[in-house]
Amino acid sequence: MSTLTEQLLKTEAHNALFETEVRKLPLPTCSAFGPTSAPQPVSFAATAQKLVTRDSAAVAESFPNSVKASDNIVLAAAGTNANAAQGKRVAVLFSGGPASGGHNVVCGLKRILGKGNTLLGVKPGPKGLIKGNLFEITDADIDTIINTGGFDFLGTDRTKIKTDEQFQQVKDTCVKHNLDAIVVIGGDDSNTNAAVLAEYLFKGVKSDGSGVQVIGVPKTIDGDLQIEGLLPISFGFDTATKIYSEMVGNILQDTRSSLKYWHFIKLMGRSASHVTLEVGLQTKPAITLISEEVAAQKMSLATIVDNIAQTVVLRAKKGITHGVVLVPEGLIEFIPEMNTLLAELNDALAHHADEFATQAEANRAGFIQGKLSADNAHLFASLPAYIVKMLLADRDSHGNLQVSLIPTELLLIDMVRARVKEIDASVPFGSQNHFFGYEGRCGAPTLFDAAYTYNLGLTAGSLILDGRTGYMASVTDLTRGGMPKAIPLAGLLNIERRHGKDEFVIEKALVKMDSPAMGYFVDRRAAWAADDLFASPGPRQLWGPAALQQPISVALNSGSDSLAFKIGA
Amino acid sequence: MSTLTEQLLKTEAHNALFETEVRKLPLPTCSAFGPTSAPQPVSFAATAQKLVTRDSAAVAESFPNSVKASDNIVLAAAGTNANAAQGKRVAVLFSGGPASGGHNVVCGLKRILGKGNTLLGVKPGPKGLIKGNLFEITDADIDTIINTGGFDFLGTDRTKIKTDEQFQQVKDTCVKHNLDAIVVIGGDDSNTNAAVLAEYLFKGVKSDGSGVQVIGVPKTIDGDLQIEGLLPISFGFDTATKIYSEMVGNILQDTRSSLKYWHFIKLMGRSASHVTLEVGLQTKPAITLISEEVAAQKMSLATIVDNIAQTVVLRAKKGITHGVVLVPEGLIEFIPEMNTLLAELNDALAHHADEFATQAEANRAGFIQGKLSADNAHLFASLPAYIVKMLLADRDSHGNLQVSLIPTELLLIDMVRARVKEIDASVPFGSQNHFFGYEGRCGAPTLFDAAYTYNLGLTAGSLILDGRTGYMASVTDLTRGGMPKAIPLAGLLNIERRHGKDEFVIEKALVKMDSPAMGYFVDRRAAWAADDLFASPGPRQLWGPAALQQPISVALNSGSDSLAFKIGA
Repeated sequence: MSTLTEQLLKTEAHNALFETEVRKLPLPTCSAFGPTSAPQPVSFAATAQKLVTRDSAAVAESFPNSVKASDNIVLAAAGTNANAAQGKRVAVLFSGGPASGGHNVVCGLKRILGKGNTLLGVKPGPKGLIKGNLFEITDADIDTIINTGGFDFLGTDRTKIKTDEQFQQVKDTCVKHNLDAIVVIGGDDSNTNAAVLAEYLFKGVKSDGSGVQVIGVPKTIDGDLQIEGLLPISFGFDTATKIYSEMVGNILQDTRSSLKYWHFIKLMGRSASHVTLEVGLQTKPAITLISEEVAAQKMSLATIVDNIAQTVVLRAKKGITHGVVLVPEGLIEFIPEMNTLLAELNDALAHHADEFATQAEANRAGFIQGKLSADNAHLFASLPAYIVKMLLADRDSHGNLQVSLIPTELLLIDMVRARVKEIDASVPFGSQNHFFGYEGRCGAPTLFDAAYTYNLGLTAGSLILDGRTGYMASVTDLTRGGMPKAIPLAGLLNIERRHGKDEFVIEKALVKMDSPAMGYFVDRRAAWAADDLFASPGPRQLWGPAALQQPISVALNSGSDSLAFKIGA
Repeated sequence: MSTLTEQLLKTEAHNALFETEVRKLPLPTCSAFGPTSAPQPVSFAATAQKLVTRDSAAVAESFPNSVKASDNIVLAAAGTNANAAQGKRVAVLFSGGPASGGHNVVCGLKRILGKGNTLLGVKPGPKGLIKGNLFEITDADIDTIINTGGFDFLGTDRTKIKTDEQFQQVKDTCVKHNLDAIVVIGGDDSNTNAAVLAEYLFKGVKSDGSGVQVIGVPKTIDGDLQIEGLLPISFGFDTATKIYSEMVGNILQDTRSSLKYWHFIKLMGRSASHVTLEVGLQTKPAITLISEEVAAQKMSLATIVDNIAQTVVLRAKKGITHGVVLVPEGLIEFIPEMNTLLAELNDALAHHADEFATQAEANRAGFIQGKLSADNAHLFASLPAYIVKMLLADRDSHGNLQVSLIPTELLLIDMVRARVKEIDASVPFGSQNHFFGYEGRCGAPTLFDAAYTYNLGLTAGSLILDGRTGYMASVTDLTRGGMPKAIPLAGLLNIERRHGKDEFVIEKALVKMDSPAMGYFVDRRAAWAADDLFASPGPRQLWGPAALQQPISVALNSGSDSLAFKIGA
C-alpha cells in the first residue's frame, strides 16, 4: 500500500482533512461564562422585559405552572452560578429538519454540564424520546462532532408529541432513564412542543414528585424563528445562506461569462423569505422576489411576470441578455389571486366531480374553466398546460392541492418567456433553473454558527443547572461579546386555527416590509436590475481574513456597524 | 447613511469581502521563472519525447508547417530566455464553457509579457476573434480579476472557426490589430481549433510575410483533457470537483441526519466520468457509477438498477434506509443496449412515420414496440412512461434523439424503486434528486487551480516570447515545484468521422479501468456501499491548514505520495 492510499483510508468516516482541521478550531465564549478554556455555568436573573402576546390570557390558563413560574419575564445571565446543580441527567434531541451547528449545541451542553452531570443523546428526535432510545454522550463523542455539520450524531425526525399516549410514553422515558431535564433543539413547532412538554412535565413525574425541566434551542435555516432584541436569528441560517450565496454568486459569474442564460433559482424557505432576502443582499442579482412583499402589495402573477419581463427587455436593450432571478420556495402561496383561484378550483372540482370525471382529458380544463368566476377563469387560462394539468390532478384527503408541488421557477420561466415575446419578440430569453435546498442544511457551520451554537449550548446547560424550565436559550449582543438570555416559551405562544382546531403556536417571523434589511434591498434593487453589480461572496471560510461575517440582514436589522460579529472578549 | 450601509455599497460589483481578500493572495511560480516577485520568461528546449498518434502520417500532411517546425517533440523550460521577444501584440480569448482559473491565465500572460509587449482581450471567445472585438488589457484589469472565478472578464462562446470565410475574418482581425500571437484558452475542441489556426496562420499573414503564433491552454472542468506524464489535468477540474464534493458531502450528512432518503445526484461531465470518480473518492458515498466501466463491462440498464437496488436492500437490513448515488451526466450513452435500442427506435420511427402519425397517442408506444426486435422491445417495455414518451418525441434534424435530455437520475430512481419492491416490498425507498453543473464552473479557483493557471499563463507567454507556435502550454511535476512544458498540438490529433465527414480531433481522455484512481475506488466501494463511511470535505479553503489539496484522482494517477501540491520553491 502506498503512502497516499494509507492517508486516503484514514479520511473515511468523517475524517477528510477539512473535518480533521475544523475540529481543532477554538470556540469563543461569552464573557459571562468566565474563562474560555473552562467555561462556568451562569445563573439567571429577571430583566425588565415581560412578554405579552395577543392570546396571553388564554395561554396562561393552559400553561398555569410555566406562566406562574416565569411570569413570562425574560432572563439574562447574572454571573457565575455558585450553586449550580450537580448529578443531573439531561437528555438532548434534534427535532425537524437539520441545520448547521446542532452538534456544537450538544458540545456546549456537555461542556457546561461537566463531570458532575450526565448528558444523554436521544436517537432520533421526538420519536426517540417516545421510544426511550437514549445513550450516554462521552467526551470522545464531543471531540468527534465538534464544529461538524449535520444532525447525524443523533439523527432527527418530525414526530409531534401530541396524543395522551405519546405524552405518557415520554413520561415513562423520563422515569426509566431518571431524567432531570430535556433539551429540544428545533424550530417554531418544536419549541412550541417544548413549551407543552415543559408544562406537562412541570411536576409529579418522578417518585419524589419532582418534574423534568425542558429547555428549547432555536434552530432553523429558514430564519423564521427570530425575535427583535431577544433572538437575533435561529442557528443554521447563516451557514445555509452562505452556502446558497456561494452557489448563486458562482452562477452569476457564469451568466456574465456564458452570456446567454437567465437562471431562475428557487431557494428553500416556504413560509418566509428571509433566506432569499439574505442571499439577495449577499449576491445582488438582477431580481429577488420576496413573498411577503407580494402579499403586502397584493401582486398578481401577471404583475410579477411583467416586472421580470420588463427587466429582461431593459437589460437586453443594453446588450445584457443574462441575469439571475431568486425565487422563494413559498412564493405561490403568497399571491392572493392564486389562493383565490385554488380555493374556487377546489370547490368546483368537488361540486362537479361526477361530470368532470366523464370529460375526455382534452376537455377537462375547458370544462372546469367554465365553472369559474371571470377573474379566476382568466388567470386559469393564462397558466401553462403542465400547471393546469397539475391543478386538475387528484386532491389530498382534505380536498386540497399541495401548492408546494407547483414548480414555481418553471412556471415563471414559461410565463416570462411568453411576456417577453409580447413586449419585444427580438429579445432573446434563454433559461436555466435550479433549486437549492438540501445542500444548505448540513454543511460545516460557519464560524458564526459554530460560536453561536456552542454558546447556545452553554446557555441551555446553565439554565438547567439553575433549575429553570420552559425557556428557550438565546444569545444576544452578537457584536458586543454576546449575552446569554432565556426567553419564556409560554410568553411566545398564540392560538391559531389549524386543521379545524385551535392550536398553540409560536408565530413564524416573516420578513417585515419596514425592516432595515428590506429597506436597504428596496433602495438598491433598481440599480442591481439595470446593470450587473453582483458580488460573489465565495465559499465560506473557516480561516483567514474573510471568515468572521454575520448575516447581512441580521447586521442591518440589529443596527450593527459592520458585518463582523464578536462573541467573547 | 450608516457605517454598515456604506460598507455594503462598496461590496457591489465583485467586491464582497472574500473577493477583496482573495485578490491579495500570493501566487507561487515554478522555479524556472526565477523570483516569484518578478517572474522572467523562459526559453524552451526539446525533450526526448516525440508524440505519435494513430493518424500521425495523415496529420503531418494536413499540418505540414506545424509538424515540420515541431517534429511533434515535447518541449520543456530551459532557463531564462535572454533573447525574449519585445514589442509583441498578443490576443487572448476564452473558448467553450467557463472553468475556474481562466482569469489567472490572463494574469500570468500579462505578467510575463511585461511592459515590453501588449496583451489584448478578445470579447467574447472565437466569435470576438472573427468580429475583431479586441481591447488592451491593463494592469488595473489584472488587479481586479486575479484569483476570481468565471470567464466574465472576457466572456466566452462556442463558435468553431471552420469556414473559409471565418478563417479569412480571423486573418483580417490579425492584420487589423497587428497581432503577433493568439492564446486560445479552451478544451479539446478549442485546442484542436488552435492547432488548425496555428497551421493556417503559420506564415504570410502580415505584409512582411510573417505569421501569427497560436498557443493553446488546457481548460475544462470535465477533466477529459489530460495526458499521462505531460498534462496532469485541465484547469477548472479541481475547483469544480471540490464545489461538487462539498455539496455531496453536505447531502451525505443530511441523509444520515434525516434518515429517510436516497439522493441521486447527477454530476456534470457527458463524455467522461472523471468528475464523478473524483467526487466519489472525495466523499465515499454508497454508490458511484462510472460510465466507462458500464461500457467496458457492457452492463445493461437492468444490471445497473439491480446493483443499486441490492445495495438499498442490503443497507436497509442493517437499518440504513438512506444513501447517495452519484450518476455521471453521460451514463445513458455508455449503456450498450440503450444505444442499440435508440438506433433501432430511430430507424423504426423513420420507417413507419406515416403509420405512426395516425396512431392514437395511447397506442403509439405499443405500435412501435411491435416493430422492434425482441431484446429491444423488452427493454423498451421496461422503461417508465415519461421516458417512453420522450423516446417517441420529435427527432432533431438528423433524425436523432438528444439522449442528454433523458433525466437519467429520475429514470434510475423509478426503476430502482420498482426493483426494490420486487426484491423486498418491506424495504422503504424515499428519494430525492439533484443535478450539479453550473454551480461548479465559475467559482473562485482553489489554490491549486489559482497557482496552476497563473503558471500556465506564464508558460503560454514564455512560448510566445520564445517564438513558438502550435503548442499547448502545460505544467508538470505539480508536487515537485512545477515544470513548464509545451505539447505540440498537431502531435495530439487523430481523425474521427463526425457528421459524415473526417475531422481532426484531440481524443477525450476517458477514465481508464486500469488507472490507480479507478483501482483505489474499486478496492473500497464495497465497504462504502455496506456502511456509512462517507467524508464531508467541506467548502474549499483559501487560507488555513486545509487549503493545499490537489485532486485525489490526479494524486493517485501521478503517483504522488500525498494530496499536497507544490508549485515553486
